[in-house]
Amino acid sequence: MPDRGTTPVFHHRIRVTWADCDPALIAFTGRIPYWALEAIEAWWKAHVGLDWYELNVDRGIGTPFVRMELDFRAPITPRDDLVCTVCLVHAGRTSVRHAVKGYQAQILCFEGTFVSAFVDGKSLTSREPPPDIARVFSYLENGKNGAAGEN
Amino acid sequence: MPDRGTTPVFHHRIRVTWADCDPALIAFTGRIPYWALEAIEAWWKAHVGLDWYELNVDRGIGTPFVRMELDFRAPITPRDDLVCTVCLVHAGRTSVRHAVKGYQAQILCFEGTFVSAFVDGKSLTSREPPPDIARVFSYLENGKNGAAGEN
Amino acid sequence: MPDRGTTPVFHHRIRVTWADCDPALIAFTGRIPYWALEAIEAWWKAHVGLDWYELNVDRGIGTPFVRMELDFRAPITPRDDLVCTVCLVHAGRTSVRHAVKGYQAQILCFEGTFVSAFVDGKSLTSREPPPDIARVFSYLENGKNGAAGEN
Amino acid sequence: MPDRGTTPVFHHRIRVTWADCDPALIAFTGRIPYWALEAIEAWWKAHVGLDWYELNVDRGIGTPFVRMELDFRAPITPRDDLVCTVCLVHAGRTSVRHAVKGYQAQILCFEGTFVSAFVDGKSLTSREPPPDIARVFSYLENGKNGAAGEN
Repeated sequence: MPDRGTTPVFHHRIRVTWADCDPALIAFTGRIPYWALEAIEAWWKAHVGLDWYELNVDRGIGTPFVRMELDFRAPITPRDDLVCTVCLVHAGRTSVRHAVKGYQAQILCFEGTFVSAFVDGKSLTSREPPPDIARVFSYLENGKNGAAGEN
Repeated sequence: MPDRGTTPVFHHRIRVTWADCDPALIAFTGRIPYWALEAIEAWWKAHVGLDWYELNVDRGIGTPFVRMELDFRAPITPRDDLVCTVCLVHAGRTSVRHAVKGYQAQILCFEGTFVSAFVDGKSLTSREPPPDIARVFSYLENGKNGAAGEN
Repeated sequence: MPDRGTTPVFHHRIRVTWADCDPALIAFTGRIPYWALEAIEAWWKAHVGLDWYELNVDRGIGTPFVRMELDFRAPITPRDDLVCTVCLVHAGRTSVRHAVKGYQAQILCFEGTFVSAFVDGKSLTSREPPPDIARVFSYLENGKNGAAGEN
Repeated sequence: MPDRGTTPVFHHRIRVTWADCDPALIAFTGRIPYWALEAIEAWWKAHVGLDWYELNVDRGIGTPFVRMELDFRAPITPRDDLVCTVCLVHAGRTSVRHAVKGYQAQILCFEGTFVSAFVDGKSLTSREPPPDIARVFSYLENGKNGAAGEN
């Protein structure tokens, strides 16, 4: 079944610095997945109320990534902040998929999708999220654009 | 047209360290694209005779990535070296595609494909590689497994 | 001659994330110099009007570090932002010294001093800063705490 | 009491890559402490038989750094491997001090000293190392250059 839409867009602003750039005078490719992950972690804190540290250390739950794909559309430099948008694309029983886009000065620099799985923090084996977290994802999943009132 | 095969497998060994690991006691996801890129750069040095620094600084050629996709199959820890294999999957007129797999103790930890484009190092605009580099890719492309003698 | 004081304190706030932490559940030591450097670069932008990218790419001037020393006073975790303070301690003819302190929840986590030299961006040889930049450092040097009016 | 000498020199070789370099075409300053720490961790594995992951995860012991100082003597580029030397300078009851130097093509690029403390891995409070590890440091401390036979 195709995804019917996405959840509201979350914005996360990143400073691009000298340390991020390579001799081609642009941000090194390897930094970009880091930033996308940072944006997804900020999404977690904003929507679920827990960052990955709290989720793992305080609640014993891990969310390791099982897949990422990124298209790099335009070079990133320190001349502007990198504004990342994050949407929850799909929340399954034991995994979630986010879409992340990164913009500088309104120009799309990269876009990607990221799938992570819920696991037990110790054993790293698959599990469902606990009720309070499942409820947040269920709420977001049901409130997707264009899907309001369907349920 | 599907790719008929791949070029010979290149091996690149990576030390996984404390610095690479997160509180889940495994390598942080963001490190894995870094390692894949490092393995591809080592492939360049071994096959083309130039690393990205030499290619960019000495020859004025860039090879920015335009796409990457990775599947994460098993956690990576410092308990073993990470052995990366790199194959050239396709060499086009102005871009190349590599496949990278990472193993620890014979277990597949990640696999991914990476597409990079040839650009002018200054303007970052698309270009064909110079003859000496084009010749290497042409040779490798023609020598793919199962394609020997076909040209 | 001992430094008679420092310039006004500049504040720079850093988000500590999952990616920064190691299996000891605290920020990895190697991240801390990165953050101190990021704070110093932010100081440059705020006081001189140029970040290191602009300084290097647009003005042809480098400011490589020649020395750093850091004392680590308390662990850093993602449970709070890391608030860095930066002061210019001394501006010499061809080098500058900054002091950086990092706090979480008012607790001093690290403190250090960092010396960088002015160099020609291409040759990396020592040089004096151009007049507009020299003027900023001279102004700050003369306005140190307790040194007002002394010149 | 001044240190009377150092333990034998340990060598650790590092590949410098594109990812490590900034727009000044040299390794970014922040990478250098990372490399020094990597070299010290390799020293641990070679001399004590445990890397920091094993020490922390398997033995419940942490060795957080309490101080580092580095002098940067010459730029580092990908044109050569970076050869790091590590010596144990002093082993105290609850802390150790290492000296690290980094060379490219026999040129000293950086040198620094690093002090780390033994702590309980959970509480991060100071402790002495367990007997098997204390014995290694005691042996090395007694075998310092020029101190042979003195005990």
